Parts: sequence; C-alpha cells; structure tokens
Amino acid sequence: MELGVIGLGRMGRIVVDRLLAADHSVVAYDVSAEATAAAAELGASPADSVGDLCDRLAEPKRIWLMVPAGDPVDETLAELEPHLGDEDVVVDGGNSHFEASLRRAEETDAAYLDCGTSGGPAGAELGFSLMVGGPAWAYEALAPAFDAVATGPEGHDRMGESGSGHYVKMIHNGVEYALMQAYGEGFELLHEGRYDLDLEAVARTWNNGAVIRSWLLELCEEAFREEGSDLGDVADHVAGGSTGTWTVQESLEQEVPLPLIYTALSERFGSRADARFSRRLANRLRYGFGRHEVARRDS
Amino acid sequence: MELGVIGLGRMGRIVVDRLLAADHSVVAYDVSAEATAAAAELGASPADSVGDLCDRLAEPKRIWLMVPAGDPVDETLAELEPHLGDEDVVVDGGNSHFEASLRRAEETDAAYLDCGTSGGPAGAELGFSLMVGGPAWAYEALAPAFDAVATGPEGHDRMGESGSGHYVKMIHNGVEYALMQAYGEGFELLHEGRYDLDLEAVARTWNNGAVIRSWLLELCEEAFREEGSDLGDVADHVAGGSTGTWTVQESLEQEVPLPLIYTALSERFGSRADARFSRRLANRLRYGFGRHEVARRDS
Amino acid sequence: MELGVIGLGRMGRIVVDRLLAADHSVVAYDVSAEATAAAAELGASPADSVGDLCDRLAEPKRIWLMVPAGDPVDETLAELEPHLGDEDVVVDGGNSHFEASLRRAEETDAAYLDCGTSGGPAGAELGFSLMVGGPAWAYEALAPAFDAVATGPEGHDRMGESGSGHYVKMIHNGVEYALMQAYGEGFELLHEGRYDLDLEAVARTWNNGAVIRSWLLELCEEAFREEGSDLGDVADHVAGGSTGTWTVQESLEQEVPLPLIYTALSERFGSRADARFSRRLANRLRYGFGRHEVARRDS
Amino acid sequence: MELGVIGLGRMGRIVVDRLLAADHSVVAYDVSAEATAAAAELGASPADSVGDLCDRLAEPKRIWLMVPAGDPVDETLAELEPHLGDEDVVVDGGNSHFEASLRRAEETDAAYLDCGTSGGPAGAELGFSLMVGGPAWAYEALAPAFDAVATGPEGHDRMGESGSGHYVKMIHNGVEYALMQAYGEGFELLHEGRYDLDLEAVARTWNNGAVIRSWLLELCEEAFREEGSDLGDVADHVAGGSTGTWTVQESLEQEVPLPLIYTALSERFGSRADARFSRRLANRLRYGFGRHEVARRDS
Repeated sequence: MELGVIGLGRMGRIVVDRLLAADHSVVAYDVSAEATAAAAELGASPADSVGDLCDRLAEPKRIWLMVPAGDPVDETLAELEPHLGDEDVVVDGGNSHFEASLRRAEETDAAYLDCGTSGGPAGAELGFSLMVGGPAWAYEALAPAFDAVATGPEGHDRMGESGSGHYVKMIHNGVEYALMQAYGEGFELLHEGRYDLDLEAVARTWNNGAVIRSWLLELCEEAFREEGSDLGDVADHVAGGSTGTWTVQESLEQEVPLPLIYTALSERFGSRADARFSRRLANRLRYGFGRHEVARRDS
Repeated sequence: MELGVIGLGRMGRIVVDRLLAADHSVVAYDVSAEATAAAAELGASPADSVGDLCDRLAEPKRIWLMVPAGDPVDETLAELEPHLGDEDVVVDGGNSHFEASLRRAEETDAAYLDCGTSGGPAGAELGFSLMVGGPAWAYEALAPAFDAVATGPEGHDRMGESGSGHYVKMIHNGVEYALMQAYGEGFELLHEGRYDLDLEAVARTWNNGAVIRSWLLELCEEAFREEGSDLGDVADHVAGGSTGTWTVQESLEQEVPLPLIYTALSERFGSRADARFSRRLANRLRYGFGRHEVARRDS
Repeated sequence: MELGVIGLGRMGRIVVDRLLAADHSVVAYDVSAEATAAAAELGASPADSVGDLCDRLAEPKRIWLMVPAGDPVDETLAELEPHLGDEDVVVDGGNSHFEASLRRAEETDAAYLDCGTSGGPAGAELGFSLMVGGPAWAYEALAPAFDAVATGPEGHDRMGESGSGHYVKMIHNGVEYALMQAYGEGFELLHEGRYDLDLEAVARTWNNGAVIRSWLLELCEEAFREEGSDLGDVADHVAGGSTGTWTVQESLEQEVPLPLIYTALSERFGSRADARFSRRLANRLRYGFGRHEVARRDS
Repeated sequence: MELGVIGLGRMGRIVVDRLLAADHSVVAYDVSAEATAAAAELGASPADSVGDLCDRLAEPKRIWLMVPAGDPVDETLAELEPHLGDEDVVVDGGNSHFEASLRRAEETDAAYLDCGTSGGPAGAELGFSLMVGGPAWAYEALAPAFDAVATGPEGHDRMGESGSGHYVKMIHNGVEYALMQAYGEGFELLHEGRYDLDLEAVARTWNNGAVIRSWLLELCEEAFREEGSDLGDVADHVAGGSTGTWTVQESLEQEVPLPLIYTALSERFGSRADARFSRRLANRLRYGFGRHEVARRDS
C-alpha cells in the first residue's frame, strides 16, 4: 500500500525504511529538506510540503505522523486539514498525551489512529511494538503497514477507542521507569555489597534462563560490557519524565496507588536536584532535638 | 561425568533429567523412596541412603544437593561428612542464605559451591540460570554438569568466593519482587482506568518488541489468557517473602536504599494482613481533627 | 469591626462565634434559614440573602466566606459581584484550590484574600491557624478579625500574593496525611509486635516530653482512650484525599519528590480498593514461574 | 531517695540535675574524672569507681546508667555485678537495643529496667518522656526518681515486661524519622514552589493552632529563624540511623509494612551516598533503548 510519512527523524526514518522493505510505497516529508532527501535515498518519494505530500498520495490517503509530541502534531494537522476527508486515515506514532489524541480524533475529519510506539533504535531491525487506538475500520485498513513497522502481526493490536493507544503507551512507559529502577536497585546493592562482582557476568548469567531476564536486562548487560562494572564516568543524572508524570497524574484521577512507578519517577527528580531541602532540614532538626553536629557546606 | 544428586523434588528431578539428557551418569537419593524410584525410572542409579550414594560414587565425588534451604541442608551435610574429603565437591543448588553457605563452606571438608538456581519449571526445557560461588577449581571441575543443568555455557558463571552465588540469587529475587509489582501496577491502572482493555492483547503486543518485554511479561500474558482480563477468582493474597526479606536486611547493613524492592515486599505483607491498623487509626484521627464520620466494621 | 459571614456550617459558626466573642459585629447568611437563625441566636444580625447581607454592611464591606470549596464559592461570588467595589474585601476561608483562588482574585472587583484555615473543631476554643494570601492592605484591614478567629496575632500571617494562603494550606494537608500515616505505622508495629501494650499509655507517655509529641499524637491518645488499644470496631477505610492529591499534582509540576506524602495518599486509595489487582497478578505470577499454589477467592 | 548515676555526659548530667532539684541524693560516677567533678559541683556525691559508687549507696541500691548503648553498658554491668543483689535495681536510660536489654535483664542479679528516654536537651527544663520495661515492683520502687527525671508522673510509664521500654523507644525513633521527613517534604515543596515564602512565618502560623503543630515543627520554626528560609549553608547530609534500622528490621520480622519509616531511613542512606549507582544505570539505560544522550561526569 501507499503511505505518506511526515517527520523523518530517527524514528520516522525507521518507519520509512521498514515500510519500503515490505514493498509499500512511501511519500516522505520533513521540515528539514535534508531529512527528506535522506528518505528519498532510502527509496521514498520526496515531498516539498505537507500539501505536496497530500497531492502525491492516492485516495483515500494514509498518513503516518512521526513528529515530536505537542505543538508539532497540531501544526501538522492544521496543514493537513484542508486536504483530508473522512475516508482518509492519519496515524500519530509519537508520544502524545492520550487526551490530546482524543481531542484531535474529534477535531480531525479523517479517521485518527493514536499509535503508541515502543522499541527504540532496536526496532530498526526487529520492528516495533505498536499500541493503536481509534476506529476499527481504520486500524484494519492500515494493518499491512502496521505489519511492516511492527515486529509482525503479533507486534501491533488495536487497544480500543481513540486515545487508548497512547493511554497504553503512557502506562508502558510508567512501568518502564519502575523496571529500570528495580534493576538499578539490585545492581546497586551488588555493587556496594559484600562481593567484588563482575556485573556484566551477573547480567549475562541472569539473561540466560533466570526469572528476571528481559530486554532491559540485556541492555544492562550491554551497559556493563561497554562501561565496566562500575559504569565508568556515567553520571547519576536521569533526564526525562513526562510520560511517567502523566501516568502518575492519571493514577491520581483513578485513585490507583502506583508506589513503584511514583518512586521511580521521583528518583529522576531527585537525581536532578542540587541539594534536597528535606534532607537539609532533617540534618538541622537533629541538632534541634539532639544537639547532633550540623553538617555544613564548604564555604 | 558422574554425579550424585540428593533431593528429588520438582527441581531436583529436573536436574537429574537434564544431567542424564547430557549423557552424565547420576546416582540419585531422596528421603522419599518413591522419589528415588521415580529418578531411577528416568535413568538414574538409585541409592538407599546418603551413605549408599557416597559408596556408589567414584572418587573424587561430585554431589548436587537440591534439598529445601535451612535444616535439611545441614542435616544432609552431617550425613555426608564422614564420606567427604577435600577433593570432593558439594553443590548446594537450593535457596540458602548466603551466610549459611559461607558457614557451611568453612565447616565442610569438601569444596563447597553455593549455586543460586533460577528459572522455575520452565527450566526443565530451557535449562536454568546458575549463579555459583566458591573455589574456582571446584567450579571448573563441575562445568560439564553446569553446562547441562543451565541453559548452556552462558547460563552459569562463577560469581566469586563462597556465598556469592546465593548472594547474587538473593538479590535476583529481590529484583523479581519489584518487577512483579511494577507490572502489577501498570496492569492495575489499565484495569481500573479509562478504557475497557483486553489485557492479554496488551501484554502480547508489549512482548513483541516493546521496551518492557520480558519473561515475566510473557507469564502475565499467559495469566491473562488463562484467567481472563480480570483474573477471574484469583485472590489478592501474595505468599512468600523470605528472599526479599533477606535482600532488604542486607541492604540495611550496606545502607543502600531499595525503595522499590522494599515496597514490593511490603505489598506482600499488606496483602496478608487482615485490616491494617495504620489505616484504622487514620480513619479515626480524621474524626479527631475534622469530625469526619468514622467508618465502622459491620457488627 | 463589622463583618459579613456567608456559610454557617460547623466551621462558619465557629468563625461567627469567635468574631462576636471579640466584640466584632457580624451580619450572617446561609442558604439554610435554620443555620442563619442559629447564628442570630449567637448574636449575629441575620440576612435573608447575599444581597440583603451586602445592604446591611457598612462601607467598605468585609465579607468572610465559609462555604464548601468549588462551585459554591463561585456561585456566592457571582451573587456578591454587583455589590462589590475595589475597597471591599472578600475572604475565602474554605479549602479552595490555589489556582481557583488566583482566578477569583483576578475576576473579583473587591480585594480577595484566600485564607487557609486549620484547626478543626478544637479551633472553637483555641482559635484557628490562618494562612492568608492576597493584597497586603486587605490583610492589614482584616487583621482584627483574623486576631479573633485565629489563636491570636501569632495564629495568622500573610503568606504572600494571591493564592499563597491556599497553597500553604494545601501543602499543610499533604504533610498532615504523612504525619497520620507515620504515627499509624508506629502504632501498627507496636500493636502487631512483641509486647502486649496499652497504646493509650504509650501515646500519653510520648505526649509528655518525647520528641514526637504533637497535637495529632494527642488525638491518637484520645482515640485509644475512647476506642481501646485495638481500636474496637474502627474500620480500615480512610476517606478523603483531595488536598493530598492536589499537593502531589503540584509536586509533579515542580518536580519535587514527596515519597511520604504520596505514600500516605496512596494508602488511602488502597484502603478503599476491594482487591488490589497488582496483588492478584503477583499471586498468579508466582504460579507462572514457581508453580506456587494460587490463592483463589471463595466461590 | 538515693540514686547512683553512672555516665555523666550531656544526658547523664541532666538526669543528675533533675534528681537533685527534686531533693533526691545522688552518687555520681563517670570514667572521666572531670565529668564526675562537674556532677559534684551540681551537688552530687562523687565516686572514684563503679565499686566506690556501690559502696557509697545504701541498700537496696538504685543505679541509673546513662552510658552509650552497646559495649559500655555491658562493661559497666560487669563491674557492677559483684556488688548487686536481687533487691537492687538498675535502670538503663540509654538507647540500647531491646534484645540486648532482654539479655541483660536475664543475666543481671538485680532487677533490670530498660528505660527509653526521649526529649533531648529540652528535657533539661521540661523533663523527659521515659518508657520503662521490666518488673513492676522495680518500676514502682523507682517512681519518685522517674517523676523527677520525666516531665512529671504523666511523663513516664511502665510499658510492660523487660525490653518493652527500649522497644517502644526504638519505634518512637522510627516515627521520628518519618515525621522529620514529612515536614521536610512539605517545606521542600514550599521552598521550590510557586511562591516566595518566609518559612519561619509559615511554621509559626502552623504552630499556632494548625492540625500539624508539634514540637518538631517548633524546631523547624527555630531552624528557619536561625538559618533563614533557605537554611543557609546547612548541608544535605543526614547522619544517624541505627534506631531506624532496628525498627525496620523488627518490622520485617513482624511482617508489618512501614513504607514511610523505611523511606525516611532510606533518605538518610541516600543523603550519604556519593552518586547513586541505580541512577547512573538508569541514565545509561536511556541510551540503550532510546539513544538519549548519556550525562557524563566531568573528567
């Protein structure tokens, strides 16, 4: 089938590549002419603009957005709008908030599929996991494209109504934070503990048959192989956090306790704080009730 | 090579089976004559007693214990002691506390390998992950047996000195608790949240290419397939906890924070408590300062 | 000075009472004629309507709202609006969200003071703690009234610009949740632990000189005195949670970790859930990897 | 009555002072001759040694130990032993582990009272909170002394059998950690949040009538008054932790979840760690699955 792909960054490029490899034809556009040209080299037909991309696509149009979540999605949809009818399908493959996807599904004339995408750079070879929300007919219509971009037919599914794809992806990411922190705690105790261990060997042994084996643990193994058992000069600063924050916000609405996911998110916040005020106060209070010496910053 | 295997429960039987399948010869003994007979049917040479098992083994002896952690290990070692010399090797494949293993390594004349074993029933086909502590020469001497019982040469490794095998296994289990709780939180939010989702389909989609794919997530998929998206009549009572408790105890000694592992352990405790006293007090305190109505138990 | 008080529930009545006791004059109104009449018996001048209350007040008007947070505040402000000028002052003494107070401060012609009120029923005798946000001149103008309603001049202060009073009160409540849970944990361990203890005696001993003495601990002492050391038929169901939820939401915006406040909030959610899905899944997963028996609900 | 006091550090000196102020007579001894001399200046009769102290005391002997927990208690008891009979009473007013107190109660010929002491330096004027475990007759015999050292008759009580005094004190301290952290979180959010607040004014307003008023909050107020709203050069390093660790260890035995107390303890550990390994691994993993840039330490 023929697809338009808008947004040709790291992830968009993989989408194009996998569609082409499965013998679909692709019209590609990115705000960067360079990125568009690179897609053309892969075999896509390059477009000059969103309008040009629409003109080049046969009816009904199938358009895959792989642009950054937030304003870029709305801006692209605004440009697309004059060209879209109700038989067209737009897929948002980015990390949009599910409520934004719900709103866009209502505002767009075309059928709108929100598509949570997981798998990272490894997806280039293996394919992604795609969690799709929106009208069933539109999902069915795009199935051949999803087969190509995902790991295969098992790697994508329609979760439910509009928003559900990004909803499931949001929670996937919340779980991801907690898994990373869980492995981190285990390796921290191994690292600080009683034995001098080769953490790559530990991770490798675990990845071969142990209950906690996983892809993230394979990435731990890789990290120890590349950085050493003490992680070399890797700093203790963890960036990111938006999808985790969304997950916790949703859990507050639903009154569902997420102690591990919350704590994992909160470890990220803590890793970015300079000197935790709560700890400074605790330090000072110990003087208040116990006349324990107050640790002071070097002047 | 030839091995004695003592302890022929579910796990011990798998060990025997995998050793025989790799053309090792096995002398097997269990306190239950029935279990010993069952091993004989698999192809092992049955022994009547620990002493008989030792008599049947060629020198130097290689003996694999797969008996329950705690007193049974000490009792078996006491029976073995008169038969062991310093060229013999004993493997403890159970879930012993690493400090018990350290003590036993010192008390036993034979070389003593503490061997953390992970993989559960699935290990019957795939082989286990084996984390081994103890003398390097003894580990090398047993390597062919470890190759057979583990998933292969990658599935076992010598972690370090005595105790380190069970130490790494203990922390493995701590991480396992946290991973289970992390997936549980995600699925709980999906289950209580805005969409009516097929959780088996979610888990399957994730297992195909998503960042959080893992063996435990495959078990979630299986659970939803077998029990349904709402887990049917599965109760909210989580048994177990000893290795998690050991992990937290060790982290207190090492002053390493394990918030996720602690919380996961603590959820198990909470799942077994009748009516949490802290919540009952909070309920009552809200009356104290706000005259909010006190919820009372049905009389 | 003269004040209008709108909203004569439990808290509003205390406000009227304390103002009258300090020789201020009060015009009182409540949607319930009965409540208005009760205030008249205390010595207030009763009004028939918001408009009537405004007519009876001398210029410039000082009006204290003690109506439930949310729509009732907006509805009352809408009724007040035609009667208010920029020399008038409105105090919102309820538990409004600080962002609503910010909006109202902008929308109201009168000066608007958001006033967090803490102290509960005990405030009737002792006076409240009042955290006030809004224009300094308006705060100064109301100081005599605040002196009367608070514990005295030390019991109220201007926190800062509009919204800051309710902001500080919101966080006060977040801390309150955590303190309740902290005491609850201590008493739970004492209750489940090694000794058979008289928890009222423990609380009384602590309240006399111990580091953790507090008003909440006095309420614990009272609770054990009235309900017994095992809290009798008090259920483990904790209601409430909105201000705690707001506190956590704000902390997510500010990227400030609040592990204790979050956990205390989350214990409330947990106390209201029927059977935690995460625990049901953990129970089932233990079968998956270890063939541990699955606890089932009674059929 | 007459008491021997052994251990004349900061706390022991307060004990002597309060006993003398209540017209008890005191024989005092410390390993430091200087400390003994200082007690003599307060009005105590100085002793040269433990034996000398025993010789100077009338029968039956009442001896109050205020020496550091651990070996010093055992060493002092060993010196006391030849001088003690079963009508004598020894009070251990330090922070001993309850299991050590249990053991000592069994090993000592004299009646042994384990006495948890809380209140810190403020106890000099107000008196302490004393939680006492051990034989009822011995507790009764010492009541006049407890009246003097505590805030009065309400400030001490017999919790139960041997060990229960230190058991209750241990859990008191666990709660104390959580309360400090709870206030710390609230003030951290106030400090990092939307308004520029005078935290001393916030604490003072809360201490006057708010639900969360407490002695620890008075210490917060004092801290902000003395250090400023941003706590000046107070560092984020929190020392201590042994009684909190014991509390968590006991909760693991009892299978009682203490999420707040655990987290508060764990924040102390975290405040002392250089660069948390778990965060370094999370930072690196984000590269693994998302090619996010890895933050590196400055070289």
